[in-house]
Amino acid sequence: MTSFKAQESLSEQIAQHLARQIINGDLLAGDRIQELRIAGELEVSRGSVREALLILERWHLIDILPRRGAVVKDMSEEHVRSLYEIVDLLFGFVVTKAMGRVQDDELTPFIELIRVMQAQVAARQVDDFHESAFQFIARATRFAGNSLVEQILDNMQPAIRRAFYLALHINRDEMQESLSFFKALIESLLQQDADAAREVIGEFVEHQRGIVLESIMRARQIEEAWNQRHRRS
Amino acid sequence: MTSFKAQESLSEQIAQHLARQIINGDLLAGDRIQELRIAGELEVSRGSVREALLILERWHLIDILPRRGAVVKDMSEEHVRSLYEIVDLLFGFVVTKAMGRVQDDELTPFIELIRVMQAQVAARQVDDFHESAFQFIARATRFAGNSLVEQILDNMQPAIRRAFYLALHINRDEMQESLSFFKALIESLLQQDADAAREVIGEFVEHQRGIVLESIMRARQIEEAWNQRHRRS
Repeated sequence: MTSFKAQESLSEQIAQHLARQIINGDLLAGDRIQELRIAGELEVSRGSVREALLILERWHLIDILPRRGAVVKDMSEEHVRSLYEIVDLLFGFVVTKAMGRVQDDELTPFIELIRVMQAQVAARQVDDFHESAFQFIARATRFAGNSLVEQILDNMQPAIRRAFYLALHINRDEMQESLSFFKALIESLLQQDADAAREVIGEFVEHQRGIVLESIMRARQIEEAWNQRHRRS
Repeated sequence: MTSFKAQESLSEQIAQHLARQIINGDLLAGDRIQELRIAGELEVSRGSVREALLILERWHLIDILPRRGAVVKDMSEEHVRSLYEIVDLLFGFVVTKAMGRVQDDELTPFIELIRVMQAQVAARQVDDFHESAFQFIARATRFAGNSLVEQILDNMQPAIRRAFYLALHINRDEMQESLSFFKALIESLLQQDADAAREVIGEFVEHQRGIVLESIMRARQIEEAWNQRHRRS
């Protein structure tokens, strides 16, 4: 078990710990997160867990419901649509702002990251690739030159990670698709082509939203078919 | 003094109380917010105040600094620029989404609100007008049809309120200007003209950002002139 030291950002550490479990599916939509149980497991105060839950709510990973307490957020169709819509808008904003301000040599770390991701695709290291992709995104976010947009994207990142993790695990080709997206994005930045960049983003967002939505609907169909058969028998 | 009852959203009530003081300038940029003092004044637990501070941080009204604790956020040039930039982007998104989906009769409450605001302008009720303007904005936000954008705008609202409050109090004509903005916005929605709507938003945002930035820079000049004279004598 992970252990936690008492320090300023204890609640943030607890939030990170729970976030990882939600992102990789150890905690599922609808699962309750019980303050007391978490406090006991991690040997932290109940107050720290309460603060961690507020952070997880800000990260769009849980809902805090009156009386029911904290519950892992449902990956509803509405949530997925909203998420990819705002990703499209904010990534589009970031690249538009980046155009013309970013020097070619500032793109070097991205090109190196793409090399790393290329190796991860070849070795089928899905989780490492997932991590690299968000290093890329976190780094790119700084080009916005807008601290509020950075904060919004930071707060949105866990929910994006969760959807992206799902996409990578349901579609064998999604690593390759994502790699091509990151390459095309850097290419459009090198060519100072804002329209191309927004188009690249729009297409990738639409593609990945489709995969995630399809998986959600398939899961629902299986659920419904099961329930129907159950009722019949 | 406002009194608080113990209930689910106690920390939110505390946050609202402190937010009002920051928005209307009772608490100034750089002012420290001390957990213990607030807990004593409001007769609430220190844990509830800590949670309230996390909410105020999410609302972009305070910074929580290691060791120094909670401090009212500086209305820096960077903050103001970032704020109006994201307002432009998100309001633009909301009206674009609203176009074609909003029925004329759904605009009736807005037209009524504009009538109220018109009376408030005539009577120079600045604070009431400020309140009405945000009723308008909160209601309009729902047209986004995107729960995450709604949440982002809800979290951003206190910081927008703070800048807008400043603008209304430094510029005598700002009520009239704002009223014209809301009228033009509804007009463009009635005419289903998305480009016009985004232009109306862009112009108003630029105008109000200018007023707020000018006031910040004037304050800084006065400060600097004072410091220089002080040094000389």
